[in-house]
Amino acid sequence: MPDFRRVAIVGVGLIGGSIGKALREGGIASEVVGVVRRQASGEAALACGAVDVATTNFVEGVQGSDLVIAATPVDRIVETLRSAAFIEPRALLTDVGSTKAQICREVMTPDAPDACQARPSLNHFVGSHPLAGDHRTGPAAARSDLLHGKVVVVTPEDETPPGLVERIAEFWQSLGAEVELLDPEEHDNALAATSHLPHLIASALAGATPETWLRLAATGWGDTTRIAASSPELWAQIFQQNCDSLRDALRRFEHVLGSLEAALVSGDQARLLHLLQEAKRRRDALGD
Amino acid sequence: MPDFRRVAIVGVGLIGGSIGKALREGGIASEVVGVVRRQASGEAALACGAVDVATTNFVEGVQGSDLVIAATPVDRIVETLRSAAFIEPRALLTDVGSTKAQICREVMTPDAPDACQARPSLNHFVGSHPLAGDHRTGPAAARSDLLHGKVVVVTPEDETPPGLVERIAEFWQSLGAEVELLDPEEHDNALAATSHLPHLIASALAGATPETWLRLAATGWGDTTRIAASSPELWAQIFQQNCDSLRDALRRFEHVLGSLEAALVSGDQARLLHLLQEAKRRRDALGD
Repeated sequence: MPDFRRVAIVGVGLIGGSIGKALREGGIASEVVGVVRRQASGEAALACGAVDVATTNFVEGVQGSDLVIAATPVDRIVETLRSAAFIEPRALLTDVGSTKAQICREVMTPDAPDACQARPSLNHFVGSHPLAGDHRTGPAAARSDLLHGKVVVVTPEDETPPGLVERIAEFWQSLGAEVELLDPEEHDNALAATSHLPHLIASALAGATPETWLRLAATGWGDTTRIAASSPELWAQIFQQNCDSLRDALRRFEHVLGSLEAALVSGDQARLLHLLQEAKRRRDALGD
Repeated sequence: MPDFRRVAIVGVGLIGGSIGKALREGGIASEVVGVVRRQASGEAALACGAVDVATTNFVEGVQGSDLVIAATPVDRIVETLRSAAFIEPRALLTDVGSTKAQICREVMTPDAPDACQARPSLNHFVGSHPLAGDHRTGPAAARSDLLHGKVVVVTPEDETPPGLVERIAEFWQSLGAEVELLDPEEHDNALAATSHLPHLIASALAGATPETWLRLAATGWGDTTRIAASSPELWAQIFQQNCDSLRDALRRFEHVLGSLEAALVSGDQARLLHLLQEAKRRRDALGD
């Protein structure tokens, strides 16, 4: 089991808060520090037992940590990791962002050729993505078993030292998760299909339903649109960061949808049935 | 509370079985007869307590009933109702089909001008649609509270006697449901958006997800595609029966999806955010 002296979690929402709770309950870290932007967020994180200490002072929170986890919205992860690398160069760094290619690229790349800028080295940073989202947000929804049995994708580059990957993998495993290794681009292609596209589709479906008919929406509509209740701010950023892969996934979706409609319009019941059976086979593979 | 001597349920699956259980537990009918096509279905219906008697003999099952409920797949409802009207002309008739316009039209219309064919009169038949589907099917999934708090749409024609509508509405209310009156076409337009389109979209999304990435599917994918596990045979028929309204709903969906993609591609974050917020507002209106 990994053993950390001090873990700093930057951003204590659903994911950051759940990690904090699991670390504290499992005795995996001696001290869990929550780094937050607003005083009220720190109070909420303390109140629900997600952290030992909360601070709005980034430097104070990160200093002395041996692991820093960026659990902010995706558009602040790069800045968080770079600043953490500057303040505490010996700390291991990871994040929980739903996109990986842009984050991993930008974290390592200076903005300008001569920029004198702190950035994490491959010896200290490897990206992560716990597949444990929820349409609920905030530390109040956090629970220590959120990652139990869930997949966390860890995204090393070719040059990332295996020892670092192993250390971060063990960290996630200690929280009950299964670790899957993918390179950042592969992660983004896959997650475009399995996560980002479903969010886009759910929003389009909810947005396209005339309000006057919402009273006739039942379980099917409710399930299919559930994640349209997620934070628009978070998801606008995720879509933007993974725009190309998301559009590829959208083209594949439109192709299948077009085939379904064509079978329907031509009255080709055999073809329609075949397409629906194929979809059911994939859905059944996941279980309830 | 309505009080029936003998209720015949033709087709004892999830919905038929749940109605049967509720009727028996509530003492709303003295006898509940399940009319099934295969012996094994009758045994299953009896085993789970959905009916008092099960028979594969349609005439025997329907004769002497004061209410006949067609709870078969949609492509057999018209035939079921016509046959029931011939066998037991005094019985009230309704159905539980997910589409209404084609069924209500065909039930009342002879196939040929001179056809000597039994058909229900407006004095005896009014269509119904309980909005209580599930991706599980069969009598084993039936439960007496399936309709509790759910909407049942009842679809009278202009000429349907108010007394009949009231009788059927009271019947559904006695099972714990709320009744909403719509004309058959209005029902089909609304349900295309709130039920049939979500099923089509869920299937397209499941079918478009490359199998190799299914292991990276989490809660969001699971929710959004859940109803793709529904019976392909049942849904192919429903799509076909409501093809025109479904395509109208599909065009509205594609329009919103196109707007989301356009905002994304042009980097118009304000517009993207607005569309996602609008979708969230509609989803939040439904509750969890």
